Amino acid sequence: MTTASSVFHNEPPKPAVQTAIPGPRSKAALAKLEKVFDTRSMNFVADYDKCHGNYIVDHDGNVLLDAFAQIASIPLGYNNPRLLEVADTPQMKSAIVNRPALGAFPSSEWADILETGLLKAAPKGFSQVFTSMTGSDANELAFKAAFIWRRTQERKGAEFTAEELSSVMKNEAPGAPKYSILSFEGGFHGRLFGSLSTTRSKAIHKLDIPAFDWPAAPFPQLQYPLEEHAAANAAEEERCLAETERLLASWPQPVAALIVEPIQSEGGDNHASPSFFRRLREITAARGVLMIVDEVQTGVGATGRFWAHEHWDLPSPPDMVTFSKKAQAAGFYYRDDALRPDKPYRQYNTWMGDPARALLFRGIYDEVARLGLVERTAEVGRYLYGKLEALAAKYPGEIQNLRGKDRGTFIAFDSPRREQVLATAKANGLNIGASGDRAIRLRPMLVFEEKHADILIDILETSIKK
Amino acid sequence: MTTASSVFHNEPPKPAVQTAIPGPRSKAALAKLEKVFDTRSMNFVADYDKCHGNYIVDHDGNVLLDAFAQIASIPLGYNNPRLLEVADTPQMKSAIVNRPALGAFPSSEWADILETGLLKAAPKGFSQVFTSMTGSDANELAFKAAFIWRRTQERKGAEFTAEELSSVMKNEAPGAPKYSILSFEGGFHGRLFGSLSTTRSKAIHKLDIPAFDWPAAPFPQLQYPLEEHAAANAAEEERCLAETERLLASWPQPVAALIVEPIQSEGGDNHASPSFFRRLREITAARGVLMIVDEVQTGVGATGRFWAHEHWDLPSPPDMVTFSKKAQAAGFYYRDDALRPDKPYRQYNTWMGDPARALLFRGIYDEVARLGLVERTAEVGRYLYGKLEALAAKYPGEIQNLRGKDRGTFIAFDSPRREQVLATAKANGLNIGASGDRAIRLRPMLVFEEKHADILIDILETSIKK
Repeated sequence: MTTASSVFHNEPPKPAVQTAIPGPRSKAALAKLEKVFDTRSMNFVADYDKCHGNYIVDHDGNVLLDAFAQIASIPLGYNNPRLLEVADTPQMKSAIVNRPALGAFPSSEWADILETGLLKAAPKGFSQVFTSMTGSDANELAFKAAFIWRRTQERKGAEFTAEELSSVMKNEAPGAPKYSILSFEGGFHGRLFGSLSTTRSKAIHKLDIPAFDWPAAPFPQLQYPLEEHAAANAAEEERCLAETERLLASWPQPVAALIVEPIQSEGGDNHASPSFFRRLREITAARGVLMIVDEVQTGVGATGRFWAHEHWDLPSPPDMVTFSKKAQAAGFYYRDDALRPDKPYRQYNTWMGDPARALLFRGIYDEVARLGLVERTAEVGRYLYGKLEALAAKYPGEIQNLRGKDRGTFIAFDSPRREQVLATAKANGLNIGASGDRAIRLRPMLVFEEKHADILIDILETSIKK
Repeated sequence: MTTASSVFHNEPPKPAVQTAIPGPRSKAALAKLEKVFDTRSMNFVADYDKCHGNYIVDHDGNVLLDAFAQIASIPLGYNNPRLLEVADTPQMKSAIVNRPALGAFPSSEWADILETGLLKAAPKGFSQVFTSMTGSDANELAFKAAFIWRRTQERKGAEFTAEELSSVMKNEAPGAPKYSILSFEGGFHGRLFGSLSTTRSKAIHKLDIPAFDWPAAPFPQLQYPLEEHAAANAAEEERCLAETERLLASWPQPVAALIVEPIQSEGGDNHASPSFFRRLREITAARGVLMIVDEVQTGVGATGRFWAHEHWDLPSPPDMVTFSKKAQAAGFYYRDDALRPDKPYRQYNTWMGDPARALLFRGIYDEVARLGLVERTAEVGRYLYGKLEALAAKYPGEIQNLRGKDRGTFIAFDSPRREQVLATAKANGLNIGASGDRAIRLRPMLVFEEKHADILIDILETSIKK
């Protein structure tokens, strides 16, 4: 059988760290870069031509197993040979050089590129896609679709009024209505002005930036292990659902849509049960509020399903699903024609996405299918979770609230000495990420296998013991 | 001498139209696409592999001279051989397949890519760049920089207060301050929630979308020909400046920055004098309000300078300049370290731009320099403007308010029968764009030459006479 490993002939067998990270050459590169670009958030500087598969190589030649994968955005390993082939096609080169304004002059291949790529991967129930550039703008375009849909419903086929046409030019209601999007405390949906108004992850993400007066409902704070806290967790979810309903019913700015992540990722890997999400679908459907599922971080296989919301067995699909990161392309799927605005040019911009990235997505999707990488990620995730459970049993003070069982490799735990553990792991050749206030999140690529899990566990244990 | 023409060995000598546009094959492609993607705004479907230089070829084989250039976003002609070489480099392929999270793990080449590309092209006085993905998000990031700067100044080195830290999580002041950005009536700065709040072009761009309560000043409505209306135009500019000052002084939400286009493009190609912009610079500097110049459409050579604001001879540079479209990359330049936030992670996102597009920008910049295309565009623009002046003299009822003298090929005029003229032009092989309520805007590429101008003028005259 073809496996992901067999694709990477040059993947290193294990990490190899010779210098501090960042080492002297990385530091020099950062100092040079700092003159023109803010580098304070940077971890290290990489030589991408030397990276293969699950391994990232820094500018000092240090080789690290990468379980962070560019903030969960590399799907199939560095220098994936199949994707390099896609990047080498005449079609890709044309897409780079002849970038069209997709809403005005699309290529004659655009329908085919969508049908053999983004739409082939569409969640069940979705037949339409609106392409964009990033997760943030994908979410904002979904918000706009929701607002336009809501007001169009209320208008019942009437044309815009003179008052709407004049007030909107002054940013005033009724043309620019004081309507809202409901999100959840701890949620992260991007950092542009609309998306940031729904982001409730950390103060540092939001401080000093004006925001819309939109509601935030509490997101369940579950206790682990789940099986020991079933009753308390069910009550917690009920509390959050009741508060969601109360906000939908009472918020002064009518709520056009609710947006929720399947697993709150930047907010600290906060989970809720499938039943919680089924209830959200019921509540929103009953109230005529659209449900947007933000799969920017959870989408494209990492949870052991192509889309994380497939774990929920919803009574009906969400109204919109947004994507980016590992998709490399970005945008939102929508259920049917009702969410196309009633008139053209209402959802419109110059590029409307990027065919180059849609071509890359198609290559990613084909490779995921060819190698069965969603199923493999489910398997590898079970293996990794089992190892982490054993490690948590051995070091209960160090690995707390382990979560992500049966969610592929989308696994996290709380670490009381997080910064120290992450630093030691890096020094030992494991690149790994944090989220929220206490969590260590694992975000390996879809080509992460049992052998990589063994190395990750070894280095993690070393880091914890230290 | 090497000319742009000599680069395109396969550029057609002239347009050739055989079918209605869209023709039968384009219509079939649009019908297929319509099932999954909104096509109502589409003009026609193109076969980009058949396009060369200034000519676009549709799916029915019709060959059109393209003076719209993907809404002013193709810089150097279709299938530009030099740019195809850039797209074929190992560096480009790596940038596509190994896309980094630039704020965390940049490539060791990133500083060099910036220094030999985006920063080499930086307007005078700018040493820093923040890369993004589109014009809309470039503007929003500039707004965020302005808000953070303003509140940081006011904080005078103090840490965030407990009230700021808690209120911001509820989207409330003081953490999420009710501060504003001033823009101009008729301006267009994008269609995300923050940028759309500054966009005042047309109601259809804004209807049903919630907006911030931000101020809009009147933009001068000049009368043409300028030399016949000097006194009235000066008075009009004074009126707009006075109203701008009044709004800056009195708007209830303190104004952190003003954003202005050198030529209001989507809004109808509205110009103002260099003196108007110099006064804006003085007014904003005196009040401690930042000045953001939106060069998304005007930048990269089309006005006969690399950046349109170079026409103004400002007393000091703007604080930020945003770019996208013909740059193919996007982002904002900023003047100095003062506009870097005081702490990391305040301006941050997953990708923070796209090295693939930065590499393409470098190729564009090198080719512009090699062929002297900014100077050539100034020359060709003078030639084209002269021809249009003659045409306007011949058909004064059809070509009104000709504008863009000494602004390269960034030329526009009002047309009382615009839709008909545009349709006839297209049927005769000229693809051309509209803006505002009455304007026809010319947006050729930087490889547009006198011979193309002659063809454009011929078809335009045919279209006007009809």
